[in-house]
Amino acid sequence: MASSATVIHPPTRLLLGPGPSPIHPRIYAALGQPIVGHLDPYLFEIFSDIRRLLQSCWGTQNEFTFVIPGTGTAGMETAVVNFVAPGARFAVFVNGIFGERLCEIGRRRGARLLRVAKPWGQVFSDEEAAGFIQRERPDVVAFVNAETSTGAWQDGRAIARAASEIGALTIADCVTSLGGMPINLDAMGVDIAYSGTQKALGAPPGLAPITCSPRAVEWLRAHESAVPYYFDLKLLADYYGPARRYHHTPPVPMFYALREALAIIEEEGLENRFARHKANHEACVAGLEKLGLSLLVDKPHRLWTVATPRVPAGIDDALARRSMSEHHGIEIAGGLGSLAGQIFRLGNMGYGSSAENVKLVLGALAEALREQGYTA
Amino acid sequence: MASSATVIHPPTRLLLGPGPSPIHPRIYAALGQPIVGHLDPYLFEIFSDIRRLLQSCWGTQNEFTFVIPGTGTAGMETAVVNFVAPGARFAVFVNGIFGERLCEIGRRRGARLLRVAKPWGQVFSDEEAAGFIQRERPDVVAFVNAETSTGAWQDGRAIARAASEIGALTIADCVTSLGGMPINLDAMGVDIAYSGTQKALGAPPGLAPITCSPRAVEWLRAHESAVPYYFDLKLLADYYGPARRYHHTPPVPMFYALREALAIIEEEGLENRFARHKANHEACVAGLEKLGLSLLVDKPHRLWTVATPRVPAGIDDALARRSMSEHHGIEIAGGLGSLAGQIFRLGNMGYGSSAENVKLVLGALAEALREQGYTA
Repeated sequence: MASSATVIHPPTRLLLGPGPSPIHPRIYAALGQPIVGHLDPYLFEIFSDIRRLLQSCWGTQNEFTFVIPGTGTAGMETAVVNFVAPGARFAVFVNGIFGERLCEIGRRRGARLLRVAKPWGQVFSDEEAAGFIQRERPDVVAFVNAETSTGAWQDGRAIARAASEIGALTIADCVTSLGGMPINLDAMGVDIAYSGTQKALGAPPGLAPITCSPRAVEWLRAHESAVPYYFDLKLLADYYGPARRYHHTPPVPMFYALREALAIIEEEGLENRFARHKANHEACVAGLEKLGLSLLVDKPHRLWTVATPRVPAGIDDALARRSMSEHHGIEIAGGLGSLAGQIFRLGNMGYGSSAENVKLVLGALAEALREQGYTA
Repeated sequence: MASSATVIHPPTRLLLGPGPSPIHPRIYAALGQPIVGHLDPYLFEIFSDIRRLLQSCWGTQNEFTFVIPGTGTAGMETAVVNFVAPGARFAVFVNGIFGERLCEIGRRRGARLLRVAKPWGQVFSDEEAAGFIQRERPDVVAFVNAETSTGAWQDGRAIARAASEIGALTIADCVTSLGGMPINLDAMGVDIAYSGTQKALGAPPGLAPITCSPRAVEWLRAHESAVPYYFDLKLLADYYGPARRYHHTPPVPMFYALREALAIIEEEGLENRFARHKANHEACVAGLEKLGLSLLVDKPHRLWTVATPRVPAGIDDALARRSMSEHHGIEIAGGLGSLAGQIFRLGNMGYGSSAENVKLVLGALAEALREQGYTA
């Protein structure tokens, strides 16, 4: 072999969009540690550490807590296909693109879909949530705790309570909240939750943490239906759990990276970490308002992890983002779907959540807007 | 954060089982390169390089060649669910655990399963293959080119020819052959093939290369059926192809690692690489025979990548493997299913395929057998 140097030479990007988020140098170091085999006791120690630390981030005692060997979308699909049988009544609260994706996956599963929608950026009130569930009497309810596409935080307590009262299971999408905001899953009464590793957990994209309540596990054990092999929670639990029965060969370096990311969270302390995200979120919002930008989401419902200022009239958002990338190496994102061209999306997650990054992104955004003649 | 050192300290293992295989230092270096976003032009350059180099390893011109963001098993499920509609006649040639897994995935898909089996370690003759296909007239045929659980190489030409003659599509499992043995997919006439990254490609586990012939792509475009969202080849192709339409956030470090692994293959040259695997395989077999061990698979049908000597009478295979691990840090594997306790499985793949490793594994195995009183 001719060369001993890697052929990978990525450009330098400061990832301040809604994910993937910047990665701590220790996590890059963890990625490069020697792999072990898929049945090596060391790997099961890693799985066990990951379980304990995810429980803490999620605020849950759920024993059934592990990681799907795919991205956040794989976590979503795993949650839906295992708990929504074909023909089941599946209620989805939709206020952004990931609510729509839950519907799409439910449709493909053959569910009887009960879709309720709000304009993107808004959230469901307790009364709306409870009323819909009492009226439609679904078997399973899904909502998005942290809607990455809009920056909206949906309180899940009323949804989970109403679902529980009629014996339905509740699924929560926590992709953009886990590790950056308090979730308190057990107090919320959520049965099944999933997330991704590339947001506030601060690890690379590629894995999907999932957790199931004892009630959800009981339901799972009592029901048989054909689910995709790769997403079969019973088979996955047989591998990641005490049986250690081979199901697939997991992406070992990604598990090392997630373990490292969770160690960093533990060392910082969850409360400190949440406070850091909150403070940097508030500084970012204050700066955006000073720039004269209004926010899509009302104050009580804003994610700390993703801020979504509206694009001012007359501004080409793609041009502004390109300028930020070219002049400052900073990546943010625009809106998706009906919000394309309407909002910017600024991330504040994990290693990327810092006072310095808030200043950098606000400065770069202000400059990009001024280039297009914007004055606050 | 208190510490700047990683918490990941894996034990040193020489991975000489049937996968995952040892990883070149350059690939560990690639894993640690800074990530970019999922729509970054640099990432699409990586995808494009990977496509070109996978085409070369597979011996195919298929434009529709990319990588599923999951393990080899995800590749298998993607191949089956996209091309086997519920109710379709799905023929599977079974001679090991991965043939059984194809059946299981077909069953879950609701296929009408046409299973034909040989004792594990044997392969299907041209006449058997053609006869079964002509008699059963399946819509889709699947076989395992390289059966990791037995070490058997199944020539696919007669299978693909017979399938093509009745208008059926052919799926080939190339998990343990890709990058270590010539495949010549186009000459074989196979329509769909998938693999894993952790075998002869020499990258970490976690990704599944897949390729589809123009005929398979045409079939795909002409048929609509609900497949799992994560495995939907049309949506995946819209992301990995020119449209660059967001579908999921891919595991960027794994793609860097695969790109690096393929660069190493290109620098070595495919012919040199195949010759290296063949030579080390032959040296391993000669050594095993000198030790007095017989091989499960007949000579013309042996994989170069996995050798499967029979466990001599009176030897406890688990005890022998534990001894090799404890005294030499060498990991090999035992048999699965009906072959548990009957065979050892020795890998000869990628960076791990070397004359030195052949000597090490043979020496350690000989010692472990002698400890149990074995004499050749």
